Amino acid sequence: MVNEGEVRSRTISTTRMEAFSDGVFAIAITLLVLEISVPEGSEDDLLRAVLHEWPSYLAYVVSFATIGGAWLAHNVITEHLKYANASLMRLNLLLLMVVSFLPFPTRLLAGYIRHDNPERVAATIYGVTLLVSAAMLALLWIYAIRAGLVEPDMTEEEIRELTRRLNPGLIGYVVLIVVGLFVPLVAVFGYFFIALNLIVPIFHITGRERKVPSRRA
Amino acid sequence: MVNEGEVRSRTISTTRMEAFSDGVFAIAITLLVLEISVPEGSEDDLLRAVLHEWPSYLAYVVSFATIGGAWLAHNVITEHLKYANASLMRLNLLLLMVVSFLPFPTRLLAGYIRHDNPERVAATIYGVTLLVSAAMLALLWIYAIRAGLVEPDMTEEEIRELTRRLNPGLIGYVVLIVVGLFVPLVAVFGYFFIALNLIVPIFHITGRERKVPSRRA
Amino acid sequence: MVNEGEVRSRTISTTRMEAFSDGVFAIAITLLVLEISVPEGSEDDLLRAVLHEWPSYLAYVVSFATIGGAWLAHNVITEHLKYANASLMRLNLLLLMVVSFLPFPTRLLAGYIRHDNPERVAATIYGVTLLVSAAMLALLWIYAIRAGLVEPDMTEEEIRELTRRLNPGLIGYVVLIVVGLFVPLVAVFGYFFIALNLIVPIFHITGRERKVPSRRA
Amino acid sequence: MVNEGEVRSRTISTTRMEAFSDGVFAIAITLLVLEISVPEGSEDDLLRAVLHEWPSYLAYVVSFATIGGAWLAHNVITEHLKYANASLMRLNLLLLMVVSFLPFPTRLLAGYIRHDNPERVAATIYGVTLLVSAAMLALLWIYAIRAGLVEPDMTEEEIRELTRRLNPGLIGYVVLIVVGLFVPLVAVFGYFFIALNLIVPIFHITGRERKVPSRRA
Repeated sequence: MVNEGEVRSRTISTTRMEAFSDGVFAIAITLLVLEISVPEGSEDDLLRAVLHEWPSYLAYVVSFATIGGAWLAHNVITEHLKYANASLMRLNLLLLMVVSFLPFPTRLLAGYIRHDNPERVAATIYGVTLLVSAAMLALLWIYAIRAGLVEPDMTEEEIRELTRRLNPGLIGYVVLIVVGLFVPLVAVFGYFFIALNLIVPIFHITGRERKVPSRRA
Repeated sequence: MVNEGEVRSRTISTTRMEAFSDGVFAIAITLLVLEISVPEGSEDDLLRAVLHEWPSYLAYVVSFATIGGAWLAHNVITEHLKYANASLMRLNLLLLMVVSFLPFPTRLLAGYIRHDNPERVAATIYGVTLLVSAAMLALLWIYAIRAGLVEPDMTEEEIRELTRRLNPGLIGYVVLIVVGLFVPLVAVFGYFFIALNLIVPIFHITGRERKVPSRRA
Repeated sequence: MVNEGEVRSRTISTTRMEAFSDGVFAIAITLLVLEISVPEGSEDDLLRAVLHEWPSYLAYVVSFATIGGAWLAHNVITEHLKYANASLMRLNLLLLMVVSFLPFPTRLLAGYIRHDNPERVAATIYGVTLLVSAAMLALLWIYAIRAGLVEPDMTEEEIRELTRRLNPGLIGYVVLIVVGLFVPLVAVFGYFFIALNLIVPIFHITGRERKVPSRRA
Repeated sequence: MVNEGEVRSRTISTTRMEAFSDGVFAIAITLLVLEISVPEGSEDDLLRAVLHEWPSYLAYVVSFATIGGAWLAHNVITEHLKYANASLMRLNLLLLMVVSFLPFPTRLLAGYIRHDNPERVAATIYGVTLLVSAAMLALLWIYAIRAGLVEPDMTEEEIRELTRRLNPGLIGYVVLIVVGLFVPLVAVFGYFFIALNLIVPIFHITGRERKVPSRRA
């Protein structure tokens, strides 16, 4: 916790940070589809050509779920902020930089999952990107708590609970990166599972600590 | 309907869900233009080359109308929500995933409509994507009603009316997918007709149930 | 003007229509840069290769100014709406469809301006797209007036003034499309001039009719 | 300062200008990833191919930081506006045009940094684009002050401080453009440093002049 004077000397409203972040998340998630395509000259057997692109669909779904999950987590974090400060804005930009980068590893994964050696490389790069984005999210939350930016009506227990929920992904990603060195496809399904997991439990917490359904009009 | 305590324990405001969804709809609808292009080296007769791309324009218009219609329907649904919960957020992400995917089937349709056999494949994939997105929209609305997330000032009759309006697309899509196996182009015009239909009547309902023109400032 | 009961039975708030439209305008304007590129293998004389792409920069600037001007005009129109109805939403989607399409004629213009015959074709397609988007804007405004959707505090004179300002582009575009059949490059500079013109005077009107600087918080 | 009557005759709310600008910044920053790719047929040694693309990552990070920094600065400026006028809207569109253009010089930089002569050309074009965008930002702020659009609760000293902070980038960019003619890579790191610098100190000022953490709900 910092003293009141220090807080006052740097605070900024979170409205536009949220709007900008929502924009970046929404664009990154929608750009993923641009990575999917069928090679030219697939007229002879289009169905086979479309089915042959299954790694693209898999990568699309996993990346979509991951960015969606990260957006939900970001949503939960900023919902609990009283205000932002300069460091938080920078951490947030860093998080957005990693999220915006994800379409590239997604394309690598989609393009090389069927090739023996390169699929290990692609899955590792993909996993590391996910790990870094999860770490940035956790860092954002931890920093917000340390800097006293969190709304005062959260109890210590609620903060601990939310912190605990944001973490398991980190360990999961580390484990899956190692798994991905041996069986890349298993790692990819693991990444999907973590994303789903991130989507599900977070709002149970949100609910618990919110007494009245608030409407930020 | 769920009891008040249960609702309180999970509710979240819909503001950022709307902002994020608006972003994804707007981006998906604007990315459609990237699928349109004239082959390199069309200097000799550019007009002919441009006219020759008519399937691209047709696919652009149909997909634009469909995403536009889906956005309007989404708009109507979220307008009637008191608040969201975790499951609704997940259903919403699933809907957005299908909507974001649409540029790919659009490109397939534009690219293969003139080739005898592949055009059936492309039209079917396109139709199935539309069917799934319509089904997700209907699911979102039905779930919102079941979970008691709908604003209490809607009468039973109004809810039934809106439900009834969101459905016909589903049957229409199923019929057109079958039609598309024989005459793909007819199916495409059918998809366009459904999209237009989705845009038109929905707001007649919206109006009827709204007594005072509200402004979510 | 329609009677109060009829208005009530269809009205919808304009907030999300504005958010969605802003999104589409912002994306269409930002996608324009993707059309600019230098051919592979320009290592030998990159400066010359970059300068050689001047039609791309010209097309970028003209299209950017046009979409920017259209966004400003859209802004002015929606600022004066009390609420929207189903037809306005459809007209608005139609306008957005034309605006979103602009990157394609922009690419045509950039790609073929140096080729004798195709440049006439490209400039005409480009001009017609601009004409249609200007016509849609004017239609949106005229419809809003006819349907009684405009804020009651606008005087008849103010409405006439704004209508008068939205029109000149239409005649200008028609003239320039004809000019473009003979000297395409002159037409392109003409389009740029119209766009600048749209940006400049509109806010003089806006100001005059607004008594107190309002803040739609 | 202008007199009250003149101000009234042109003012417009800044809400949608902010929304539109946020959209353009968010899209431009997210499109940067589309410039990163590994050449086809990198199956043999994907890791080497990925590492070989380091100029793309460098260019991505520098451009991301620059657009992020510009967005923060834009944020600070608009936070202090009472309202906008026609000229400010035009200056803002001009700024957005330069920011939206940045993905093109970024691609040039990424593509030619390893080629002896072209890298000087690419670094210069890149630097000039950054210089122009910084100049536009400074111009926006200076114009806002001159036209009396800035909130009256800012003291003269605070205005001077913010002005002083927005400037150093300009001189830095000029110096680095010259440096880039000799050692392009050093210039690129310099651009990165300026971007970081733009992100860091701006909010120290924002804090100092803000007494109560405001929430633009």
